Amino acid sequence: MKLKARLYPIEADRLIVVLNEEDAKDLGVYVSGRVRISYKDRKATAIADTTASFVKDGEIGIFEDVRKLLDVSDGSNLEVSATKRPHSVEFIKKKVDGYTLNENEIRAIIRDIVDNNLSNIELSAFVTGGYIKGYTMDEIVALTQAMVETGQQIDFGDNIVDKHSIGGVAGNRTTMLVVPIIASTGLIIPKTSSRAITSPSGTADTMEVLAGVEFDIDELKEIVYKTDACIVWGGSVNLAPADDRIIRVEYPLSIDAEGHMLASVMAKKRSVGSDYIIIDIPVGRGSKIIGMDRANDVAHKFIELGRRLGVSVECLITDGSSPIGSGIGPALEARDVLLALDNKGPIDLIDKSLDLAGILLELSGKIVKGRGRGIAEHILKSGKAKEKMMEIIDAQGGDPNVKPEDIGICRKKMTITSEHKGRVRYIDNKLISMIARASGAPRTKSAGLYLHVKVGDSIDTNDPLFTIYSPTKSRLKEASNLADKLSPIRVGSIISNIIK
Amino acid sequence: MKLKARLYPIEADRLIVVLNEEDAKDLGVYVSGRVRISYKDRKATAIADTTASFVKDGEIGIFEDVRKLLDVSDGSNLEVSATKRPHSVEFIKKKVDGYTLNENEIRAIIRDIVDNNLSNIELSAFVTGGYIKGYTMDEIVALTQAMVETGQQIDFGDNIVDKHSIGGVAGNRTTMLVVPIIASTGLIIPKTSSRAITSPSGTADTMEVLAGVEFDIDELKEIVYKTDACIVWGGSVNLAPADDRIIRVEYPLSIDAEGHMLASVMAKKRSVGSDYIIIDIPVGRGSKIIGMDRANDVAHKFIELGRRLGVSVECLITDGSSPIGSGIGPALEARDVLLALDNKGPIDLIDKSLDLAGILLELSGKIVKGRGRGIAEHILKSGKAKEKMMEIIDAQGGDPNVKPEDIGICRKKMTITSEHKGRVRYIDNKLISMIARASGAPRTKSAGLYLHVKVGDSIDTNDPLFTIYSPTKSRLKEASNLADKLSPIRVGSIISNIIK
Repeated sequence: MKLKARLYPIEADRLIVVLNEEDAKDLGVYVSGRVRISYKDRKATAIADTTASFVKDGEIGIFEDVRKLLDVSDGSNLEVSATKRPHSVEFIKKKVDGYTLNENEIRAIIRDIVDNNLSNIELSAFVTGGYIKGYTMDEIVALTQAMVETGQQIDFGDNIVDKHSIGGVAGNRTTMLVVPIIASTGLIIPKTSSRAITSPSGTADTMEVLAGVEFDIDELKEIVYKTDACIVWGGSVNLAPADDRIIRVEYPLSIDAEGHMLASVMAKKRSVGSDYIIIDIPVGRGSKIIGMDRANDVAHKFIELGRRLGVSVECLITDGSSPIGSGIGPALEARDVLLALDNKGPIDLIDKSLDLAGILLELSGKIVKGRGRGIAEHILKSGKAKEKMMEIIDAQGGDPNVKPEDIGICRKKMTITSEHKGRVRYIDNKLISMIARASGAPRTKSAGLYLHVKVGDSIDTNDPLFTIYSPTKSRLKEASNLADKLSPIRVGSIISNIIK
Repeated sequence: MKLKARLYPIEADRLIVVLNEEDAKDLGVYVSGRVRISYKDRKATAIADTTASFVKDGEIGIFEDVRKLLDVSDGSNLEVSATKRPHSVEFIKKKVDGYTLNENEIRAIIRDIVDNNLSNIELSAFVTGGYIKGYTMDEIVALTQAMVETGQQIDFGDNIVDKHSIGGVAGNRTTMLVVPIIASTGLIIPKTSSRAITSPSGTADTMEVLAGVEFDIDELKEIVYKTDACIVWGGSVNLAPADDRIIRVEYPLSIDAEGHMLASVMAKKRSVGSDYIIIDIPVGRGSKIIGMDRANDVAHKFIELGRRLGVSVECLITDGSSPIGSGIGPALEARDVLLALDNKGPIDLIDKSLDLAGILLELSGKIVKGRGRGIAEHILKSGKAKEKMMEIIDAQGGDPNVKPEDIGICRKKMTITSEHKGRVRYIDNKLISMIARASGAPRTKSAGLYLHVKVGDSIDTNDPLFTIYSPTKSRLKEASNLADKLSPIRVGSIISNIIK
């Protein structure tokens, strides 16, 4: 069928055209059907949306992405025909129907996700079906391999080490201590991190206070060759891109399919060739994994998945019931890290980082069992870790002489005090994160909050609990109102809930 | 947050705005998050898509539907804040997690579907979750009631009768014979039908050859008051609109969730107040329901659902393994119907229609058990059914003197003949439908195909199997090539498959 192009200067996130309902009917294209469009010697396949009036009979609405691909002008005559939906949609249906998928089927789905060939309806069915029906270990291995293959891969040689945290704990910037400690020993640790999605800061956001984090593959390689390490944003290198697309659909549904999660973590690591990986699985109030049984189960699956992929994995189930570190928000966290490198930072952040670094040193075979933590502590105390971190900061375009006091923090602030006397019973991760976001983090890097207390501290009435830092008065007011409403820190009472 | 409106004259099928990624982050809105927008005293809630570049920082992309609602201009300053996703998304998650939903939860989901408050991602999770986890009878009752409540309802009084066919059988225009037979007895049968989605014709498409089928509620009432019947397109009256939205998502996934199907059929019927309903469940090769066990199960669920809703339902499991009638395509089918009303049409179409009409007469209590079919046959033979049909055609704005030979059929035609001698073993519904669509039906009403043989006929080599009618040479060629490729009619061989 010949249709006249009508251009709309709009980016869609996939190849979409709009057909008049009558033309669509004639072509036999229904909702989210697909058409093949030819113009001169160029061809494209796009998902067809239909409309009663927006595009007239005989016309085809062309968005920016399709226009670029075909290089058409307004009014160009395009040849349009119906084309079958990709095979991967059948495989998604198979999963929805409860069948186990083979390697080729999984590869087809992941390939089409990366190529933006699937509509949101189809992607959501994949995510929902995978969540309900689950994946066998064979399927998870195939998912991981397909995610790796469809993205960039970098080979840094042998004995590459890496770490990952399942997340959900406020603060928790262990990566920024573990990486320099490990790299000080000569091991290579090319760490890619994420930015915040719902939290007040991701490791990449915090690192960005000290140095650049967006590099292409060649720049990344140079940094790692120079320093044996990096701490960069994973999004700027195209590692396992299917993962991000899947998360974009999981997020609005509050779905976190275990199979996808396992594959996604391992795929990011395999893409940089990691051989030894430790995974931090925080458990407790407000963290992602609730309950020890579930944590153990996930840990064993990570280890088995690693075994199948030829990677040594060790999992640490950690206390995720309260924040790690005192600063929450990019700049406040970066300051904690610099203080810790000077042996002055929050003790819980230092402790956890040394535990992780020690076990990673042992796992890699670099240090004999039982001596890892001691060595890690020595590296930190001696200033070697700081020296390495400054090298990394320098390589990533930051100031290698940066000091904790150089880090700018918002000057508008307000301190929340305790209404009770007693012990600090809990500090809720999710509520603390919400308040820090309300203060302006992560967009305003210097916004966030600073915790003056830790769980177990004995405090008096009117003692400070935390200080909120905000770029504007209105933001500060918003965050402090939220703090009043949420009461993220409980002091005194050990009653969890009253049931009437 | 204040954002400047940037207008895009585009219809979306729901309320959508586009935010710059940075603003979205700041607002705490992630993919398919929702924002509340205020302008002067007007407010709207919309799903927020994000973009890196299409909408600048500080701006908000406004499509046509939101523009109308808020009456904003390009450059207007809008107040935008994040708002929670609707509760119905939590209920969808509950279903995905395998919980049974209560009446209020189901009502909230259906209400939000009708109000276009859900994104495609959320709708697809609902459809996929419902398909995998299934629905209890309580849930199906609630789904049906919610679908009825959220659409138009018409009260035609007591003793309203109705029929429905699950579909999948080519031809099968029994409605157009059953309705006039039933209405001749004084029973009221306000029949709404669908248009073709993937088939070469829906009952509404075929009726449209003879009369108008798009009427508003008041016109519809007048037609039914005048003739005790109607045969109209359900889409022009807003009966159970949730159903169409659900089908739009099920279709691209090839999902036909039983619970949705049961609720959708009964909701359309309850919306016009039907008290006695017969449901035709065709079973066999190429029809929707495959296997007698499944058909029996569906039948019992329809009857139970009817009981719970206070409606008498009877189901007829019919042979759906081959087309009913000879013409396939709107005009060819309409001609069959007119011939049948003159007692000259295809015998299988007449037989099936009389069976359905007879049982419906008995079910309604109008005719004693065992005499329904005889009465139905008498009504048809005597010409009363024809008379009633002409009344209906007249009331719907058609020509009440229309004759079979008045129906225009495409003049470009080609007859496909048999390569073998023997008995006709099968005529495949799906393949016949594909060829009829390729010929130009339903868009070209006078296109389609005419079957010269029925299953069981003994034929010779070169005997005609079917004739294809098309508006253009190229269409005719396309359809006949497809016919060659698909071989929809098998003659002779009883081998179903050869496995090597």
